[in-house]
Amino acid sequence: MPQLDDTAAARVSGREANLTKPAGSLGRLEDLSAWCAAWQGAYPPRLDTIQILVFAGNHGVTAQGVSAFPPEVTHQMVANFAAGGAAINHLAAAQGANLRVIDLDLDSPTADFTQASAMSKEDCAAAFTAGFEAPDASADVLIVGEMGIGNTTAAAALSCALFGGEAADWTGPGTGLDAAGIAAKTRAVAAAMELHGNDFGDPVEALRRVGGRELAAMAGAVLAARHNRVPVILDGFVATAAVAVLERAVPGALDHCVAGHVSGEPGHRLLLEKLGKEPLLDLGMRLGEASGAVVALGVLSCALAAHNGMATFEEALVSREG
Amino acid sequence: MPQLDDTAAARVSGREANLTKPAGSLGRLEDLSAWCAAWQGAYPPRLDTIQILVFAGNHGVTAQGVSAFPPEVTHQMVANFAAGGAAINHLAAAQGANLRVIDLDLDSPTADFTQASAMSKEDCAAAFTAGFEAPDASADVLIVGEMGIGNTTAAAALSCALFGGEAADWTGPGTGLDAAGIAAKTRAVAAAMELHGNDFGDPVEALRRVGGRELAAMAGAVLAARHNRVPVILDGFVATAAVAVLERAVPGALDHCVAGHVSGEPGHRLLLEKLGKEPLLDLGMRLGEASGAVVALGVLSCALAAHNGMATFEEALVSREG
Repeated sequence: MPQLDDTAAARVSGREANLTKPAGSLGRLEDLSAWCAAWQGAYPPRLDTIQILVFAGNHGVTAQGVSAFPPEVTHQMVANFAAGGAAINHLAAAQGANLRVIDLDLDSPTADFTQASAMSKEDCAAAFTAGFEAPDASADVLIVGEMGIGNTTAAAALSCALFGGEAADWTGPGTGLDAAGIAAKTRAVAAAMELHGNDFGDPVEALRRVGGRELAAMAGAVLAARHNRVPVILDGFVATAAVAVLERAVPGALDHCVAGHVSGEPGHRLLLEKLGKEPLLDLGMRLGEASGAVVALGVLSCALAAHNGMATFEEALVSREG
Repeated sequence: MPQLDDTAAARVSGREANLTKPAGSLGRLEDLSAWCAAWQGAYPPRLDTIQILVFAGNHGVTAQGVSAFPPEVTHQMVANFAAGGAAINHLAAAQGANLRVIDLDLDSPTADFTQASAMSKEDCAAAFTAGFEAPDASADVLIVGEMGIGNTTAAAALSCALFGGEAADWTGPGTGLDAAGIAAKTRAVAAAMELHGNDFGDPVEALRRVGGRELAAMAGAVLAARHNRVPVILDGFVATAAVAVLERAVPGALDHCVAGHVSGEPGHRLLLEKLGKEPLLDLGMRLGEASGAVVALGVLSCALAAHNGMATFEEALVSREG
């Protein structure tokens, strides 16, 4: 895997120290500029082309009563994306980003993972490959997101498989479950751990057994971005659980990713802690669709505007400290 | 003072409940849309014209060695704003906002408030009036910011005067003081409390005695925005301390303001707690110049894009919960 470009990062730091502001006073914006250049492997960092990929999949585990919405909503929301009516359409437009939605075999939900493996090896590989092939190598930043009724249950099960703990550590209201619904979801995750727990031989096997097609695709896309030297802004719980597979398989595999936000879904905070990622935003968002990452994109955009545009002390004839 | 428009807020809530997403799933973005409409007193909430006002002033208290930068930097940075080289120039451009910089009698620093009142009544009133007259009544949102070497010391003293506590509760590194510098700053604030403490008859008197011209102007501008029905995004420690004068004078006077961010300067977090304001962003920024608020503007922009643009369940033929 490509590693970060120290030279590009050093050029950011070198220029940052000469810009007309107190050292460090743009806080995380300064870190973002360095991170972006380091992973683009180029200086100056750029944000001309932003690619958003939203993957959609259906989940057999919805049979366990784990979602507040009926499963046909996945398909309906894909139509809503196509018609331009969803949140992500308008967030992407507001941020000047290109949105592409890829639905993955919606008419064949994955198997109910409380009863069997969610996907066959072939299914999982096909979804991963669809994701791996989707990113544009010339994009400056990639954001991946998802739509899939039932997929916070898959994310909870996958997180539990990858990082351990109790099922209830990872479950939450998702799209709006009441206490009884959360209890059903927790039972489903616990049942999956009971059924598959001894067979989580490696992270990819966990993804196959309790994940879903859109999760596999997101993992594939984020791996492709690494090979393409495209930095990634991570979205919420489902997207982060999906790519956590990469980190568990190869530590450091998510070094090119920044956590865009921490979701209102409680498992996400725990998952980011496990991954050592500090989110940029904490706004109680819990929609998925890449929405939180796209809001966070505005912070990166500001970071690069300041870094690339500001005058140095010398240029502006401004006195330095002391 | 105008109060919020319940009807406009209710129209936001009514539409929000019908948009194609789980209820509440855009988190604080939903609150922002309602807040914006409520204070604009109109529906739909708009963000076509964004006004940023940056006020600059000089401070006699710099004689106490309270800043890492020499006082002439205030004037130099005003020139940098005019030339387009400062962070705020590029952040404003990135967000499509109009920036105006107003310097306030830079050649006559306020008096050293460890020795005397910072401003005469006439000076303070003139600065407040300059601020009050600066906002554009037709703006959709106002952001105020500042430049003034020494002004985190004024903000610390003013916060201490308004909310009590020890001088050290409110002081911090500002633009980059070392421990000895912070100690000098804390001594200056303590000396000001000793000198003026019995005479802080009302919040405006505290502003006059230990504030500064740019602080008075920011308070005036934010009061004018209230009268103009223009919502305000608050910036960092100095801007928040300035407008805290309004809240202490008339509780509720800052209800039209949202906290854009919490600064890396430690007193700001405490000040926001005292004001009951939850910041949108926490990115370790501590530059002033309205910079944190302008980054936060991106969140508001996303909120309105989603609220105003999304399809309803009925329009998109998407099934609801249950």
